[in-house]
Amino acid sequence: MTNPSPQLRAAPEAREPTRAPTREGVLRAAAKVSALVPHTPLLALELPDGGTVWCKAECLQPVGAFKLRGAWHRLTDLSEKERARGVVAVSSGNHAQGVAWAARRLGIAATIVMPADAPAVKLNETRRLGAQVVLYERLTQSRDAIAAQLCAAQGSVLVHAYGDPWVIEGQGSAGIELASQMECFAGGPPTRIVAPCGGGGLVSGLALACPEAQVVPVEPEGWDDVTRSLAGGAIVGVGANPPPTACDALQTMATFPINFAVMTSRGMQGVAVSEAEVRAAQVYAFAKLRLVVEPGGAAALGAVLAAKVPADGRTAVILSGGNVDPASFASVLRGESESMK
Amino acid sequence: MTNPSPQLRAAPEAREPTRAPTREGVLRAAAKVSALVPHTPLLALELPDGGTVWCKAECLQPVGAFKLRGAWHRLTDLSEKERARGVVAVSSGNHAQGVAWAARRLGIAATIVMPADAPAVKLNETRRLGAQVVLYERLTQSRDAIAAQLCAAQGSVLVHAYGDPWVIEGQGSAGIELASQMECFAGGPPTRIVAPCGGGGLVSGLALACPEAQVVPVEPEGWDDVTRSLAGGAIVGVGANPPPTACDALQTMATFPINFAVMTSRGMQGVAVSEAEVRAAQVYAFAKLRLVVEPGGAAALGAVLAAKVPADGRTAVILSGGNVDPASFASVLRGESESMK
Repeated sequence: MTNPSPQLRAAPEAREPTRAPTREGVLRAAAKVSALVPHTPLLALELPDGGTVWCKAECLQPVGAFKLRGAWHRLTDLSEKERARGVVAVSSGNHAQGVAWAARRLGIAATIVMPADAPAVKLNETRRLGAQVVLYERLTQSRDAIAAQLCAAQGSVLVHAYGDPWVIEGQGSAGIELASQMECFAGGPPTRIVAPCGGGGLVSGLALACPEAQVVPVEPEGWDDVTRSLAGGAIVGVGANPPPTACDALQTMATFPINFAVMTSRGMQGVAVSEAEVRAAQVYAFAKLRLVVEPGGAAALGAVLAAKVPADGRTAVILSGGNVDPASFASVLRGESESMK
Repeated sequence: MTNPSPQLRAAPEAREPTRAPTREGVLRAAAKVSALVPHTPLLALELPDGGTVWCKAECLQPVGAFKLRGAWHRLTDLSEKERARGVVAVSSGNHAQGVAWAARRLGIAATIVMPADAPAVKLNETRRLGAQVVLYERLTQSRDAIAAQLCAAQGSVLVHAYGDPWVIEGQGSAGIELASQMECFAGGPPTRIVAPCGGGGLVSGLALACPEAQVVPVEPEGWDDVTRSLAGGAIVGVGANPPPTACDALQTMATFPINFAVMTSRGMQGVAVSEAEVRAAQVYAFAKLRLVVEPGGAAALGAVLAAKVPADGRTAVILSGGNVDPASFASVLRGESESMK
């Protein structure tokens, strides 16, 4: 399959990039994604205290992260003219692979602006999927300026990693799957969804998908701009000289108004996790779920394991990605196995 | 749920432990397992040459291996009297956890005879699941004699790891799921199923489940007694002083007539893989599927990656387990990441 059926295409009036994302859009995205790839599994995870959380294993997507959801929804809604001019995206690697994967499947040219220090596995896979990769220096160059220049030169559409209504709706399709899987195996839909948060695309989509659930964004310490923005009622960015973090997928400088509007309308409150809490979650997922989860993908589980978010009711955790270099993952396992002896 | 519904229980005449396993039994087991745990996902895996194999991720079962299938089918068919006297099993760890998990859920006492050199993760999990563990020395003690003694003393039923009709049928339930998932996503049922082989319980069950598919058992080099038995037309055991192998789950000394009958009736031919081929498969599954697969669980994928089994038609691979100590898995990742530089 390369295209969704006609009834799943957007009406012309819904093609405005500044429109607000809607639950109807999430449902449309979920139908498109369901026809594209199998649902990622929902796995019951026993916590050390005997409780249970439900883990949505988005690291098992074909590109190793949830990002193909938003990319597929966005790209399949482009007009023929837009498709012909190609797309541009900015990403440390997971959105890059999602856009590249969807673009290859649809025969659309993709150019991805990526930081030079992105994990090798992410750079290699993005290129292998046929995208053109443009590197930039994370601390000295503006990736958005580079992307804007590319779009202007080629007349391409920018597929923003989180500040885009289609991308938000597409990521929300994970919540539609999650709710139906939890109805089946957990006795009802989720009452709480804990999810890693970079710019807020995923948590915004989940909130639209599951209007009854409390959605909790989790960020790395020092990169908790969304948490601070939600606490203060206005968007603030990551401060100067943020600390190093292994969570490359969550290193975004500030959320966008389109995301912030959804998050604040739901009264979201964020949580920050330490690097050690993230590593502990990676090891726990390895041992108990036999899953490879990248640092950013394990942030939400880290918050639950550290009891920073309660796991009462029907709590779900998104394991959002699993693209990690083998040497880096081995270090995480070694550290834990040594300290456990 | 603790018990299957009445219509899924065996008729009294079908409770003979020396009976032959049947396809009807596999279907009954599949219905019971479907009501117990979600289907494990079927993941498309792109091979280095561009081909695709379909991977059934049994490492994502709650106990990290397919073994709960046979254990659940066996234990749910025990009479009330048999349940009251408990069960005994012999296993290096995955069957142990499968039996312990099923027994705990059904309120049955379980005693498991395990080798003293089993991976720590398997010993710990079996105990954590509430089973009594009896250790033996792999090279000097007879595990079967210890198990027979325990059964005689307690009047317990022995749940053999592979030479048991229920266990064979239960493991076959993976093939029923696989066939329906491949119909959905691969355009038809599997034409070939490549699976790791210890005593032959899984491959026998898969053969009953999928009568049209070629089933290929894969063993570690030096432990390829099933391959040699099939080639010679009579059961032979592993030779004296077999080489060390990381595939603890596949270290069985000889298959049983009940398994051999199914395998020969289908004209099966086995394949042996080297330790390096197993490690390469573990690294490939890590990088491409984000799955933790233990050495024995990766044997079938190793055979396909080494082109010892063709991946033409609709070829499926069983990733049968993911219980591996973190330090051991880190070594596998380190070795590969170093040699790739």
